[in-house]
Amino acid sequence: MKRGFGSDNHSGVSPEVLKAIADANVEHALAYGDDEYCERVVKLFKTTFGEQASVYFVFNGTGANVLNIDAMCRSHHAVVCAETAHINVDECGAPQRIVGCRLLTVPTPDGKLTPELVKTQLHGFGFEHHSQPRAISISQPTELGTLYTVEEIKALADLAHSYGMYLHVDGARLANAAVALGCSFKEMTTDCGVDCLSFGGTKNGLLMGESSVILNTELDVDLKYRRKQMSQLCSKMRFMAVQFEAYLTTGLWRRNAEHSNQMAQLLYAELQSVPQVKVMYPVQVNSVFAQLPRDVWTALQQDYFFYDWDEAENVVRWMCSFDTTVEDIKNFVAALRNI
Amino acid sequence: MKRGFGSDNHSGVSPEVLKAIADANVEHALAYGDDEYCERVVKLFKTTFGEQASVYFVFNGTGANVLNIDAMCRSHHAVVCAETAHINVDECGAPQRIVGCRLLTVPTPDGKLTPELVKTQLHGFGFEHHSQPRAISISQPTELGTLYTVEEIKALADLAHSYGMYLHVDGARLANAAVALGCSFKEMTTDCGVDCLSFGGTKNGLLMGESSVILNTELDVDLKYRRKQMSQLCSKMRFMAVQFEAYLTTGLWRRNAEHSNQMAQLLYAELQSVPQVKVMYPVQVNSVFAQLPRDVWTALQQDYFFYDWDEAENVVRWMCSFDTTVEDIKNFVAALRNI
Amino acid sequence: MKRGFGSDNHSGVSPEVLKAIADANVEHALAYGDDEYCERVVKLFKTTFGEQASVYFVFNGTGANVLNIDAMCRSHHAVVCAETAHINVDECGAPQRIVGCRLLTVPTPDGKLTPELVKTQLHGFGFEHHSQPRAISISQPTELGTLYTVEEIKALADLAHSYGMYLHVDGARLANAAVALGCSFKEMTTDCGVDCLSFGGTKNGLLMGESSVILNTELDVDLKYRRKQMSQLCSKMRFMAVQFEAYLTTGLWRRNAEHSNQMAQLLYAELQSVPQVKVMYPVQVNSVFAQLPRDVWTALQQDYFFYDWDEAENVVRWMCSFDTTVEDIKNFVAALRNI
Amino acid sequence: MKRGFGSDNHSGVSPEVLKAIADANVEHALAYGDDEYCERVVKLFKTTFGEQASVYFVFNGTGANVLNIDAMCRSHHAVVCAETAHINVDECGAPQRIVGCRLLTVPTPDGKLTPELVKTQLHGFGFEHHSQPRAISISQPTELGTLYTVEEIKALADLAHSYGMYLHVDGARLANAAVALGCSFKEMTTDCGVDCLSFGGTKNGLLMGESSVILNTELDVDLKYRRKQMSQLCSKMRFMAVQFEAYLTTGLWRRNAEHSNQMAQLLYAELQSVPQVKVMYPVQVNSVFAQLPRDVWTALQQDYFFYDWDEAENVVRWMCSFDTTVEDIKNFVAALRNI
Repeated sequence: MKRGFGSDNHSGVSPEVLKAIADANVEHALAYGDDEYCERVVKLFKTTFGEQASVYFVFNGTGANVLNIDAMCRSHHAVVCAETAHINVDECGAPQRIVGCRLLTVPTPDGKLTPELVKTQLHGFGFEHHSQPRAISISQPTELGTLYTVEEIKALADLAHSYGMYLHVDGARLANAAVALGCSFKEMTTDCGVDCLSFGGTKNGLLMGESSVILNTELDVDLKYRRKQMSQLCSKMRFMAVQFEAYLTTGLWRRNAEHSNQMAQLLYAELQSVPQVKVMYPVQVNSVFAQLPRDVWTALQQDYFFYDWDEAENVVRWMCSFDTTVEDIKNFVAALRNI
Repeated sequence: MKRGFGSDNHSGVSPEVLKAIADANVEHALAYGDDEYCERVVKLFKTTFGEQASVYFVFNGTGANVLNIDAMCRSHHAVVCAETAHINVDECGAPQRIVGCRLLTVPTPDGKLTPELVKTQLHGFGFEHHSQPRAISISQPTELGTLYTVEEIKALADLAHSYGMYLHVDGARLANAAVALGCSFKEMTTDCGVDCLSFGGTKNGLLMGESSVILNTELDVDLKYRRKQMSQLCSKMRFMAVQFEAYLTTGLWRRNAEHSNQMAQLLYAELQSVPQVKVMYPVQVNSVFAQLPRDVWTALQQDYFFYDWDEAENVVRWMCSFDTTVEDIKNFVAALRNI
Repeated sequence: MKRGFGSDNHSGVSPEVLKAIADANVEHALAYGDDEYCERVVKLFKTTFGEQASVYFVFNGTGANVLNIDAMCRSHHAVVCAETAHINVDECGAPQRIVGCRLLTVPTPDGKLTPELVKTQLHGFGFEHHSQPRAISISQPTELGTLYTVEEIKALADLAHSYGMYLHVDGARLANAAVALGCSFKEMTTDCGVDCLSFGGTKNGLLMGESSVILNTELDVDLKYRRKQMSQLCSKMRFMAVQFEAYLTTGLWRRNAEHSNQMAQLLYAELQSVPQVKVMYPVQVNSVFAQLPRDVWTALQQDYFFYDWDEAENVVRWMCSFDTTVEDIKNFVAALRNI
Repeated sequence: MKRGFGSDNHSGVSPEVLKAIADANVEHALAYGDDEYCERVVKLFKTTFGEQASVYFVFNGTGANVLNIDAMCRSHHAVVCAETAHINVDECGAPQRIVGCRLLTVPTPDGKLTPELVKTQLHGFGFEHHSQPRAISISQPTELGTLYTVEEIKALADLAHSYGMYLHVDGARLANAAVALGCSFKEMTTDCGVDCLSFGGTKNGLLMGESSVILNTELDVDLKYRRKQMSQLCSKMRFMAVQFEAYLTTGLWRRNAEHSNQMAQLLYAELQSVPQVKVMYPVQVNSVFAQLPRDVWTALQQDYFFYDWDEAENVVRWMCSFDTTVEDIKNFVAALRNI
């Protein structure tokens, strides 16, 4: 396949990550997280997110999201989220099947919830016919490549807490947000009052590594059993832990995310010269959403794979990756111009 | 941690596997299995198990087992299995939570089901108060390190089919069975009439790679959606596929399994010289179950990690691995003798 | 409590129904539906809905809806319904918990789906990240008291079938629809191509009696087990069956529904004289939705219980029942006028 | 069908119960339990079981059991019960599907758990691969018609509590136990430390009425939502409440249970004269389990319906009911003798 802009999980693995795996491939280690590597990385997560943080490594982003929802909710609860949220659109109903709860979805202009939008769903408390709102879930950055400011996250956390609810952040691309906002992971999460976080690495250079990070200790109840029960317990967990170690201690997360963000800016800049292409949302991280004529789209897909984002509106998504090159972008925009 | 006999997932990764991952770490590839690597390995599974076989890569053995059960059963069905089965004992109730079905467990002397034992559970058909028996699940080798012969598997498949039921094989260590029986994977599964298989590699040298292999095409319905919904869909799936490729095409599965089986034979032989240790089951693959005085056990655990298998009976499990050395065994038995 | 307009399940039981129960209270009868009463009433349902119809008596409307969804869907499927649908709003997430599937909800002006509205949800087929649309669910009459014509139901059934999907009708108040449209139950369901139906009686004079009626025989697979598993199997089922017998054979369903519909028309007519009250939707069956000033509303609720339908819009719901009297209405409107 | 001994739910409804329903069939009442009848009966349950008791009316015994299990357990928990328990054998896997937890079943000689038997299942605490034992569930009387003494129940409650676990009692026939033991409901439950109770009436003369009675207030969390979500919320609940009112305040429960127990004693006595019939368990309540030659059994079933209890052992179950007559028994034993 031609290198392109289909997804940031089309790229491979950062060399630092493969090296960390190879380095850990010595001798025996206890399985299921009871080894020294994991012990070390659990501490690293505490350094990163605050001492109260606990981390549950899982296999993929859906696993992280569902474990977090299961930490916050029982089946009669509901999670308020944007209509575009990954948990709503892209997990084939995993929260419904695994947790059994409802999602209360809100249409948004840009993928971002606001207190006002959330409040439209905050009613029916105490009424047994209605699922009880229990959590707010946001994606940072959103599925549309937009960002919450630290203040906006804090406002949502405050709203949640004022209702006895929790705030979850789907941070599959949290590194891209941190780089764009110029703040640390902790400033965007723990310090805002976020209760739990899906912290991803796979889309930013890891081989396979996602995690559920519990920031509010009252949610940290019996999760190890439920992770196992959801088939999310990795046996040779050291090899997952050391990926995160390389990610967090060598500056890899920052280098990779800075690069992919910059490439998206370059792509955005280059697209200015293609009048038929209309960029839909502010380009804040590593994605560009573009509206373009259907025939251009189709012609371009002959050579490049990318997702139809909104068929009705002729919107597509182009993602930059940690290994996207300037040449990739030049070639792509040239191909676009040729069409 | 001292190298020991805690589990075959305490060892690391075979070099061939890491090399395959590194070799695949070039350029971009479509995610979620739509890439050329996966295409190639899907074909390889067909070569291995028969043309009608389809394979769903998943993250771990529990994921493979649950997806297979979900392929065979709806929630009102029941799966007949040995009381010692991994799906019954070691998955924290995953089949119950995820599929919602019952397990009908049968006590066995050696971890093996027989048609006679299974038949004790085959009643209540058509009676709506009872979960309906729908599948038989066996482990090959069993959790007690014993083996079914090809004829025994065939007899169970025939029994299942005569009742309109299915036969599932949990093959987390299928390579060890193949080596011990001197037969191919296909001879033990497809050719016996097995309907679906959990085919594992992690315990025999892979980094992380398990799979649900559907051998009866009538079970291959909509599983891709349910794999996704169960949070078992890997994004950078090429890195899982190439592990299996290295495993199946370079003879790695055989080399590793032969070695760990031989080490178990050596351990068994050495144990003959320790009169307080009683080996409980025939040593057919890479595990030794031993009964030993509680104080010996405790003293030994100062230096070596291993699982209490049956506390009431003072039975422990010792597993050999693809990287177990003769020296490991000599040291271990020496330590045992010293106590 | 003062007689009022809170719900049609605030009224009691029609005398014909209590008599039928008392008449059946002789001798012994097999439990769980294997008795002569049930046999008779199963035939009656076939007479009513067509020979291919099968009926599963259940305890309440939620039970009927969930059993029907479970007949149509597995967990990776989705049901398209109006945002106002009972299955979406008023069942505390039962479909999500029990079936594990998603609901794809559509905003509507009047509680009614149209093919155009449904089509907005019919995409992503074959894409494993998305729940697969499998059924359309409508309520007849809708939760807003509006009606589908026979042609409209047929159009939705045709749409469903053209996509390999099914059409479910939530008919908790189907009798009110039949009376209003002047057609038989069968003309509104079977003859339109409806695949399964929740057929209710409790809101129209029964003590307790709801049912899942399967009209498409391909859905009639193993439902008796799943009804039992969902805790919806009644032991002394003869007493549920005979309620339906009285309902369907004595003209009771028609008398009661005609009366409650007429009372709603009377209420609607009387409300014309109260200028602060704005009726929101066509009054087609036994409910009136009214917008009225918050203080009037609050004052009225001192004496009368009724549900806030839409707090933001100051809309309330008033239901007439089979035992609503002209005097009830006169008193109520007088009270309203006094305020 | 000939009057017989198939089940105590083959009989109809006590006249007092039908009268209570008819008496409550006046005017309107709020639905879903918010009416004066229910308020009154909730108080009556507090009088009966202690002030801390709360009651959730449900439709059937499976509903009561599942709601209670859901009050005690999350999906990673396990319930220890006898292999013969109704929750294990006769609910088509409802606890597994609805709660998602495991049952840890114990073979027993007489349907009764003992602390020793329970302790065989109390291991693996803290080990994430194993479902965590969380509750003990017993049936009083058991499914084999045997009884726990008050002291035995207390011992099991103490055992449960010493492990941080709960004790549930399935009391579908609790009245029969109370009569046989000569103690009150409270003495057998609350006073023993029972945490929650499925309290039934349908098998002892009610039309339809079961309940989940929560005796340990820490379990009384959000159950109203989960009852609704499980489709167990009755709309015209007054008619369920008044059945229990008649049952508890008029001595009906005692009269009916005394009668059915006495009839079982008579049946037992009469059977002494039939040498081919061997009674299997002590006859303590209203059931008799008998072993008899297969041909006798088959011949008898020409005229009488009854359940095969254990086909392998040729054991059948005969239940007496509140309306069983001396003549019924004489005729039955005569028929048996004739064969």
